[in-house]
Amino acid sequence: MSSFVTTEGRSPKRWLLGEPLPNEKLDEQLLSKRLALPIFASDALSSVAYGPQELLMILTIGGLAFLSFAPWIALAVILLLVTVVASYRQLIKAYPSGGGDYEVAHKNLGEKAGLVVASALLVDYVLTVSVSVASGVDNIISAIPELGGIRVELAVGFVVVIAAANLRGVREASTAFAIPTYVFIGSIGVMIVTGLARTILGDAPVAESAGYGVHGASLTQAAIVLLLLRSFASGCSALTGVEAVANGVPAFRVPKIRNARATLALLGGIAIALFAGLTSLALITRVHYAEQPCDLVGWATCATDPQRSVIAQVASAVFGDNSLPFFIVQAATALVLLLAANTAFNGFPLLGSVLARDAYAPKSLNSRGDRLVYSNGVILLALAAIVLLVIFQASLTHLIQLYIIGVFVSFTLGQSGMVKHWIRLLRAGDPARASTVRSLCINAFGAVLTFSVLVVVTITKFTHGAYLVFIFMPVLYTLMLGVNRYYRDVAKEVEVDATTVFGSNRDHAIVLVGGLQKPALKALDYAIASRPDSIEAVHVATGDHDTAALKRDWKKQNIHIPLTIVDSPYREVGLPLIEYIERRRKERGPELVTVYLPQYIVGHWWEQLLHNHRARRISRQLMLAHGVSVTLVPWLLDSSSLIYGRRSRPLPGQDRRGEPVRPVARRPLRPASEAPRTGTSNKRRKRPVGK
Amino acid sequence: MSSFVTTEGRSPKRWLLGEPLPNEKLDEQLLSKRLALPIFASDALSSVAYGPQELLMILTIGGLAFLSFAPWIALAVILLLVTVVASYRQLIKAYPSGGGDYEVAHKNLGEKAGLVVASALLVDYVLTVSVSVASGVDNIISAIPELGGIRVELAVGFVVVIAAANLRGVREASTAFAIPTYVFIGSIGVMIVTGLARTILGDAPVAESAGYGVHGASLTQAAIVLLLLRSFASGCSALTGVEAVANGVPAFRVPKIRNARATLALLGGIAIALFAGLTSLALITRVHYAEQPCDLVGWATCATDPQRSVIAQVASAVFGDNSLPFFIVQAATALVLLLAANTAFNGFPLLGSVLARDAYAPKSLNSRGDRLVYSNGVILLALAAIVLLVIFQASLTHLIQLYIIGVFVSFTLGQSGMVKHWIRLLRAGDPARASTVRSLCINAFGAVLTFSVLVVVTITKFTHGAYLVFIFMPVLYTLMLGVNRYYRDVAKEVEVDATTVFGSNRDHAIVLVGGLQKPALKALDYAIASRPDSIEAVHVATGDHDTAALKRDWKKQNIHIPLTIVDSPYREVGLPLIEYIERRRKERGPELVTVYLPQYIVGHWWEQLLHNHRARRISRQLMLAHGVSVTLVPWLLDSSSLIYGRRSRPLPGQDRRGEPVRPVARRPLRPASEAPRTGTSNKRRKRPVGK
Repeated sequence: MSSFVTTEGRSPKRWLLGEPLPNEKLDEQLLSKRLALPIFASDALSSVAYGPQELLMILTIGGLAFLSFAPWIALAVILLLVTVVASYRQLIKAYPSGGGDYEVAHKNLGEKAGLVVASALLVDYVLTVSVSVASGVDNIISAIPELGGIRVELAVGFVVVIAAANLRGVREASTAFAIPTYVFIGSIGVMIVTGLARTILGDAPVAESAGYGVHGASLTQAAIVLLLLRSFASGCSALTGVEAVANGVPAFRVPKIRNARATLALLGGIAIALFAGLTSLALITRVHYAEQPCDLVGWATCATDPQRSVIAQVASAVFGDNSLPFFIVQAATALVLLLAANTAFNGFPLLGSVLARDAYAPKSLNSRGDRLVYSNGVILLALAAIVLLVIFQASLTHLIQLYIIGVFVSFTLGQSGMVKHWIRLLRAGDPARASTVRSLCINAFGAVLTFSVLVVVTITKFTHGAYLVFIFMPVLYTLMLGVNRYYRDVAKEVEVDATTVFGSNRDHAIVLVGGLQKPALKALDYAIASRPDSIEAVHVATGDHDTAALKRDWKKQNIHIPLTIVDSPYREVGLPLIEYIERRRKERGPELVTVYLPQYIVGHWWEQLLHNHRARRISRQLMLAHGVSVTLVPWLLDSSSLIYGRRSRPLPGQDRRGEPVRPVARRPLRPASEAPRTGTSNKRRKRPVGK
Repeated sequence: MSSFVTTEGRSPKRWLLGEPLPNEKLDEQLLSKRLALPIFASDALSSVAYGPQELLMILTIGGLAFLSFAPWIALAVILLLVTVVASYRQLIKAYPSGGGDYEVAHKNLGEKAGLVVASALLVDYVLTVSVSVASGVDNIISAIPELGGIRVELAVGFVVVIAAANLRGVREASTAFAIPTYVFIGSIGVMIVTGLARTILGDAPVAESAGYGVHGASLTQAAIVLLLLRSFASGCSALTGVEAVANGVPAFRVPKIRNARATLALLGGIAIALFAGLTSLALITRVHYAEQPCDLVGWATCATDPQRSVIAQVASAVFGDNSLPFFIVQAATALVLLLAANTAFNGFPLLGSVLARDAYAPKSLNSRGDRLVYSNGVILLALAAIVLLVIFQASLTHLIQLYIIGVFVSFTLGQSGMVKHWIRLLRAGDPARASTVRSLCINAFGAVLTFSVLVVVTITKFTHGAYLVFIFMPVLYTLMLGVNRYYRDVAKEVEVDATTVFGSNRDHAIVLVGGLQKPALKALDYAIASRPDSIEAVHVATGDHDTAALKRDWKKQNIHIPLTIVDSPYREVGLPLIEYIERRRKERGPELVTVYLPQYIVGHWWEQLLHNHRARRISRQLMLAHGVSVTLVPWLLDSSSLIYGRRSRPLPGQDRRGEPVRPVARRPLRPASEAPRTGTSNKRRKRPVGK
């Protein structure tokens, strides 16, 4: 123990994460470009790990000859990537608040469009987790084929671990998260350079699957076009994650917009280089990757051995199988893919809070420090991803069919919204006319292109599983709209209007007493101090407390407040008490009744299980009665002092929002001592108390 | 809809269960013997479904020749059954309160013995569920062999269904629960009579497995003795459930004790008849049942076909395979086994409430109407049973190894406690000396016999899995003792002592205001009505509400209470408010602070998800501050009127406790209308309110 905790009482965690910063240092805690790039890039760059593979695999369905189309399709993907990056650079300029496509669509195209984007993004977060984890597991199995038998278990295990880490509270913006991305960029870069250099020097690397043939299906003209389009659509999965920077602008240091745009450009450049390099190397080394391993002709052990991922085959060809660099590439790839899954766990609550702010999601999603709600979001996302992974047996090829539809829905609507935004600016007589027109053109081009891709993706993937997305999205859409209408109705209901007239007059205090112990005495004391018009103590005789003993103690302690005993044949407290109050009101006319409930406050979580929560349950019942309010009088057990000094943990999505970890209160709250205080004792009280 | 709801508004459920009875009819609702027998017997009688089978199976390990020992072992089991029934008839006489062995051991042998019994019983409830469900599934598969592939899924599914039914609230003491038991007794009875009659008439039925041989292991003398003891120990599983009647005495009609004793005797008689009959028929039809199907020599499809249960083989031999009576026997057997599992779900909360009463379990287990706590118990029991079923692949043979250790621990300690009880009576000079001596002898014999069986069972089963029970029991024991010590410490802590001196004087009211809506106005009204020494409204500016709009509205509504704005840079409400209160106290000296929190009350469960629970969260934080109490002012949304008129559902264990379903409040609670009331409006208020 002592080696971990220094004399200043720094916990190991504190030691790892650094001390919480005071408010003034806020800006220093924001992300430098050096840290922002890897944190926002893991999603976008990791998709390079599966983009080329899926592109080539679909072509291979038509036969090896079709691989000659690969460079052209890759070029189309890169063109699209350039367009999307350029479009997002415009979006950042116009909407630096981090709302992303949702905000743009909502503000420019209206509520409905915004909700379509939101539902698309929610579906996509689930798929980001599933696809990234499936691909990560693929690459782990490529390095350690012995794990091939527990693919689904591994995938589910990783989702659970990531979810658990997020429930515990991890800081996304830590160096620990940045290193794998840099190692990934570096190792893939070295691999590409080495591979190309060897090729130029005439020693072109050859993949292990280069010798395998494939049974090409005989295709009609239309089928060939469809195949090429499908290959393109699958390759487009390399574009996912580009939007992350636009959602994270608040987390950048000033000048936020310039830094974010520069980071996005850099990210785009790296993604293009990796995508182009990896696709070229795959073609040079003649990696043959098929939808089903046994579609490969000439592979004897196809039924038992797992098919290695394209990255693994290229790395193995370039560096030699099971060489150290091979393992570095595989480890970095797997890590960066798992980080990408982690980003979804950060993005989900962020989007949730934006939706909550606009009243399309439960308001609690927008309140800070409500761990429980964030936990629910994390658990929900994890469960959905696990269900998908189990149903599709963690098969990347099948999962990717569902992916990117959401991405392109939000791309298209986001860019369309931007077009409308620029047009409005121009109409309003924008001073920077030239720049705005350029932005308009870029976004218009982006909108047209991404819409075309959306059509292609939908057509080519619909029957392969993407139809599921077209079921989930409307469901989410309807839910969000329903939530919004509910909030609207409630707001209308509680609105102050001309007929709102209050004016309670007499008030009566009831102190609910179980047994005569300190908490009850404290509640009595508080009730007396509030000087109501009348006061009484009520004991509901349920048999749990000894009623006779209470009466005796009451006399012995010489308490001058009348004690009323209410019988409860069914060992219930709430209902008999309500009936008593209603009887009283019938006799004496309307009055305000305040019920004082003593309540234990405990320190350990397990103590919660051992106390009755009777106060809470009774208060829930009392709240339904007419003209009753409930006063909870806390009694702090000794163990409750443990609660003080507990530090808060970071919440998922906090870094991207640009918010620092909330510093702890400067001085710890003073534990409320229940020891003697100034004033007279209960017994010697002289105050006039009703009745 | 209209066809289900009659004009009197009776729901289908009400129609099924009958109207809730008023208090006076309580006695009529208690169980007649006709209803009590099947309800308490399902556990005991259902064990006849697996007892003979396990007895024979163990013998078969030694070879078919060992089956000749079966009648003698069965006789020993029957003797034991008679002893145990006789012992429990004494127990009912002395302890008719339903506490069973736990109460007896606790009162006579002390706390520790009582806790050992309690932990044994808790473990046994879990095993009752697992074993009964596993056996039930066995019998279903015996009737429909196609289901053999989903044994575990079926078992888990049944546990989930039973748990769900108990969560929804089922009345154990309904005729629907009695019918299967009677059908079971009847059909097995008819089967035994038919089988024996056919045998006497020279047409002895022959089981399908009669022709299969078995490889008998060659055993040493000691191993043979051990095998016979093991067979006996397994046969003793037929005794489980006999204690149910003793736990359910409060549910009987008067004369309770006589009725309960008569029911127990009847139950014992039926159990013996069924056990003896079934064992005889199994021997007559030469059912050969092996631990592993492929231990049977001559069965070609042993690897794929499931081995049919002994009951199924006998029924098939007597009535003909797939005949109607065969299916009736199987259906009744499966149903009665599932009912037996259900009884554990009723017994568990009952024991829990007794333990809670004695402060060995969370107090909340003893409070009526706390569905949540009962739900937790049901879920816990279901989860534990599911874990066992999955680990042991729903194999009856493996699960039964863990079973009955707990039963015999509680038998032994219960009987020993009874012995002590009678001795004490005798020493005190009992008037009915002769009867007491007889009871003493019966219980002493029972104690010695059950202890011997406990030793046998432990020795023969320990290495076959029973060691697990010897891990769980001490853990539960320690937990219960810990809970007890905790409660003792808390009671000491809150005890009123000489130094307990209270006496608060000034009180200050703070109304927490988000936006100026009706709930906030109501809270203000309540705070004013309680006439504190001083009052102010506090708004914590988190950015969620528009602070400027609030200030404007405040002016517009002409509210004469000062409005304080507290800044919250971290969008948190609780901590800034506490800091504000502490600052105030530092400036003005000690005073009592009451914070008024408006809180929404909603009707639908899903509305809970849409409200922030901010009031609850803030109140939790405020409770930790010094000298602060929290007053919750309810605001009932229109939907909350749904809550009225909700009927309560029966709780697990309620029937056995002899408690009726709690009748609903005679007149529905009047929904608190928030419409204009007598009194003046907020604006025209003239009351003196302290600055």
